[in-house]
Amino acid sequence: MDTMGRHVIAELWDCNISKLNDMNLIEQIFVDAALKSGAEVREVAFHKFAPHGVSGVVIISESHLTIHSFPEHGYASIDVYTCGDRIDPNVAAQHIADALESKTKETVEVPRGMGPVEVKKYNVL
Amino acid sequence: MDTMGRHVIAELWDCNISKLNDMNLIEQIFVDAALKSGAEVREVAFHKFAPHGVSGVVIISESHLTIHSFPEHGYASIDVYTCGDRIDPNVAAQHIADALESKTKETVEVPRGMGPVEVKKYNVL
Repeated sequence: MDTMGRHVIAELWDCNISKLNDMNLIEQIFVDAALKSGAEVREVAFHKFAPHGVSGVVIISESHLTIHSFPEHGYASIDVYTCGDRIDPNVAAQHIADALESKTKETVEVPRGMGPVEVKKYNVL
Repeated sequence: MDTMGRHVIAELWDCNISKLNDMNLIEQIFVDAALKSGAEVREVAFHKFAPHGVSGVVIISESHLTIHSFPEHGYASIDVYTCGDRIDPNVAAQHIADALESKTKETVEVPRGMGPVEVKKYNVL
């Protein structure tokens, strides 16, 4: 496989707080996001923290999706990384942002596997 | 927990090809890297692709470490993301680069959880 990849970093603020603390829901949202973008799911691992917060990853054939949620801050830190040019990681990132009802989203897309590159500024939406 | 985090993106080139295709070794390197940096390991999930390549993640209390390896290109795509300021993600990233015998390393550190920020250029070593 070619090393070229696209890595979307999405900072989701002002999310639905109860959703950010629901591990099973987040896992379903992430699997749905992967499938919606056309990715093939390989491994799924999620962890619920006490007293609150969820971390998890979906490993796809084309790389990964991760989340770290901070319900107490209404914040979720998202990464969607897809190798190749068949899949658009923004499709999955948008699905996650919509599902978590984020009202303030910052994203940046980092090219991977292509040598030194300049990373653009965050795109605040 | 504070939302502030540090995310090191490391592009490792010219690695030891046989190590890049050894899933069990990579899993051990990643767990060791997490522990060396002082992180607490929560979940481990790795996947071996046919005919070659390994993807995997170590979820730590402080966020995650991921890898996607491309033995046929001598390349490994690494992310080390740590929340808070107790742990330096560069310690884990350096351990991984050394263990995989990378001869050309590009890294960039992305601040997370702090709102819109400008991301620096890759640092080629």
